[in-house]
Amino acid sequence: MSTRAPRGRRPGGPDTRSAILAAARAQFATAGFSGTTIRAVAADAGVDAALVHHYFGTKDDLFVAALELPVDPRVVLGPAIEQGPDGAGERMLRVFLSVWDDPANRLPLLGLVRGLLEPSGQRLVRDGFLEVVIGPVGVALGIDEPGRRMPLVASQVFGLIIVRYLLEVEPLASMTTDELVAIYAPTIQRYLTGPLP
Amino acid sequence: MSTRAPRGRRPGGPDTRSAILAAARAQFATAGFSGTTIRAVAADAGVDAALVHHYFGTKDDLFVAALELPVDPRVVLGPAIEQGPDGAGERMLRVFLSVWDDPANRLPLLGLVRGLLEPSGQRLVRDGFLEVVIGPVGVALGIDEPGRRMPLVASQVFGLIIVRYLLEVEPLASMTTDELVAIYAPTIQRYLTGPLP
Repeated sequence: MSTRAPRGRRPGGPDTRSAILAAARAQFATAGFSGTTIRAVAADAGVDAALVHHYFGTKDDLFVAALELPVDPRVVLGPAIEQGPDGAGERMLRVFLSVWDDPANRLPLLGLVRGLLEPSGQRLVRDGFLEVVIGPVGVALGIDEPGRRMPLVASQVFGLIIVRYLLEVEPLASMTTDELVAIYAPTIQRYLTGPLP
Repeated sequence: MSTRAPRGRRPGGPDTRSAILAAARAQFATAGFSGTTIRAVAADAGVDAALVHHYFGTKDDLFVAALELPVDPRVVLGPAIEQGPDGAGERMLRVFLSVWDDPANRLPLLGLVRGLLEPSGQRLVRDGFLEVVIGPVGVALGIDEPGRRMPLVASQVFGLIIVRYLLEVEPLASMTTDELVAIYAPTIQRYLTGPLP
């Protein structure tokens, strides 16, 4: 909207948002989460760092936006987390299943999982997804040793995603929410709050 | 070795073995395990079906050979299975970890997992790997409802493979066998013999 020349940087608008997201995705994939800076993403997109903050907030927020998740896990898991560690395994699993079992979310989520399982996705999961999305859940829950426990939770949840949603192995693919909760909630709860070696 | 013309079919030898394996891999990938026949594999490889049986045994054996696993899971898991369902979670997990933690096996196994997670691999896992390799373990153990229980075991084992070996997430990637057994053996044992919904 400004009539001043933008000193070689683009003005705001939908194209700017897309350019920032594209630059962010490229940097997160090559430099990992920890190696990515808002300043470098802004430079790649040809905008001021302040504009990146304005559109996307923190680096964590930018990362979640770059993943293009159909839902923000930090938002949908909020109520399940607020009630604390007791029963959190079942509450979080029910949220997870409701998101994945919604047909509108399935394809984008499967695309994301396939991308994360490619060699280029390894850093995104290890340095980004676990640090920004999964790790903070454990901290917010107030469990002990979240850095040891949340990867255990991830190991069961990733496996469930692969067998139920990616490979569609029966009878797991057709089980109801209540059946899955009876099977998997105790496992996840034990990883969250049970004894560790 | 024969001096007779082989009626348009190749004689035996290393090249014949390779041709049969290549034909088998192609058919299993496109037609799935159930849609593949020894006869069709033999025709594709330009040999008699009897020669396929001679080299590779049954269709199950041919499938395992086509996967090019560094070890035959049916063989290495044999002693763990023979002792029955009690404690089988820990015994099978220890075998699994000893195979995956051997550096000679790691790369071939990771290559296999990456292949199985690709869209073309879905049928191989669902119709082949689960039916030929994982399913029979449950039957041999003598557990009830192996068709429901073994996919649950697979969901935890696949997730452990992804987080520990494919993504190398810490501290899971550096945990000792005994730590992993303390964490995962109870889960696997519950899926094998615990109550089901």
